[in-house]
Amino acid sequence: MAAEFSIKRRVSFAETDLASVMHFSNYYRYMEEVEHAFWRSAGACVIFSEGDGEISWPRVATACEYFAPARFEDELELKFKVENVGDRSVTYEVEFLRDEKRIALGRTTAVCCATAPGKFESISIPQNLRAILEGDAK
Amino acid sequence: MAAEFSIKRRVSFAETDLASVMHFSNYYRYMEEVEHAFWRSAGACVIFSEGDGEISWPRVATACEYFAPARFEDELELKFKVENVGDRSVTYEVEFLRDEKRIALGRTTAVCCATAPGKFESISIPQNLRAILEGDAK
Amino acid sequence: MAAEFSIKRRVSFAETDLASVMHFSNYYRYMEEVEHAFWRSAGACVIFSEGDGEISWPRVATACEYFAPARFEDELELKFKVENVGDRSVTYEVEFLRDEKRIALGRTTAVCCATAPGKFESISIPQNLRAILEGDAK
Amino acid sequence: MAAEFSIKRRVSFAETDLASVMHFSNYYRYMEEVEHAFWRSAGACVIFSEGDGEISWPRVATACEYFAPARFEDELELKFKVENVGDRSVTYEVEFLRDEKRIALGRTTAVCCATAPGKFESISIPQNLRAILEGDAK
Repeated sequence: MAAEFSIKRRVSFAETDLASVMHFSNYYRYMEEVEHAFWRSAGACVIFSEGDGEISWPRVATACEYFAPARFEDELELKFKVENVGDRSVTYEVEFLRDEKRIALGRTTAVCCATAPGKFESISIPQNLRAILEGDAK
Repeated sequence: MAAEFSIKRRVSFAETDLASVMHFSNYYRYMEEVEHAFWRSAGACVIFSEGDGEISWPRVATACEYFAPARFEDELELKFKVENVGDRSVTYEVEFLRDEKRIALGRTTAVCCATAPGKFESISIPQNLRAILEGDAK
Repeated sequence: MAAEFSIKRRVSFAETDLASVMHFSNYYRYMEEVEHAFWRSAGACVIFSEGDGEISWPRVATACEYFAPARFEDELELKFKVENVGDRSVTYEVEFLRDEKRIALGRTTAVCCATAPGKFESISIPQNLRAILEGDAK
Repeated sequence: MAAEFSIKRRVSFAETDLASVMHFSNYYRYMEEVEHAFWRSAGACVIFSEGDGEISWPRVATACEYFAPARFEDELELKFKVENVGDRSVTYEVEFLRDEKRIALGRTTAVCCATAPGKFESISIPQNLRAILEGDAK
């Protein structure tokens, strides 16, 4: 089992470039936005307070394939899907759709970390967060 | 043979996030900056006028692995290296170094296109640009 | 008479900086987002096709005052209000509210221009667009 | 007396928008970059450790006028000039020049604050930092 979730996102003017399309780096911001919206939808936050400290998810690998450009004011659907939940890391995929056609596909691997500002130490994913990622939370 | 090139780049305040490190999406902007500096160093431009039209290089795939965070005012070395030059596409790697230690590694595949605003049509890489990518230009 | 309009906008992670607040430059992106949403709400677009050409609105002056910081995942209300419509320019204000408290106040003056890529020539604001700005359109 | 300082900055591809010019919000990032380079040039940092705590400079007002667009790969000169040093705040101006012609003019007022993540308390500007701002440091 694995969680799935989606949001709509409209391409803003500042996200375009002189090739008249969305700059390729902004797909990575969108991938993070749907991830964070997913955590919110489960009543959590990507930065999760746990006792005295905080848990966050620094990225160890990200990737994106681009099949067709996105343009100013396009309304995209971002489909978030957890692919794998390991002991300390999670891999998820984000599909970018316009009018139900796939225009890009991203993948992120993030590590569960106990966090202080600028410092990260990997830990086993706590059971309550694992349940959310595995789609068992509700 | 393949071209190699490097620049220095200092992490700016606006590129950091509330985890006190450079936001992961900005590595992709740095990858593009060293690519464009490479073209400039060869007397060309990533947007190259050719007869009536223009040639540009939309991305079809990008990826990055992160080994250690970059912080505000870190001076990074960005090492650009062409990995493969196909008929219509090029793949290059960018190594991110701080104090000679690798902190991230990116890869981009871009397609040579005849370009009008918002439109792209793939073409064989012209010989003068191929020579630059293969490090034979000078 | 003058048009008024508002949207909600949630602060994303990539918009924060190492001071743990939204970077001050992003308020300007929000000002533009509510402006463009305003045009869309009137059935128009900030880039408006008019006969053979296009009309757009390059900025000649922008400003913002900051009263309290915005933080990650804050949901802000952006209240857009046209202040003045001249022959060739418009000035509008954007109020940033969190829980109905004003946290920032921005102002933009933009000039109506006939536009080609990278080129701008100021023109009198066409009557149909003026009606929208003056709140008389519907 | 007041400090003056300048740097060169080349417009990157990701900073342009579909109007084929630098997006107006990026001038604010440039204003911050030259400010931080100014502090570095004086052997300081915009985030200055002072005893147990840190001093930083949140903005209370920013503004920019635009006289001509900046384009991809333009090399701009950013001239930073301190206009006024108050008890707790500083106002500085940044002039944007291309080929010695002024294309934009920005102004920032920032407040000296004792800082913890996300928290700011205004303080009198310490004498060592005041000397830098007044151009008396060397």
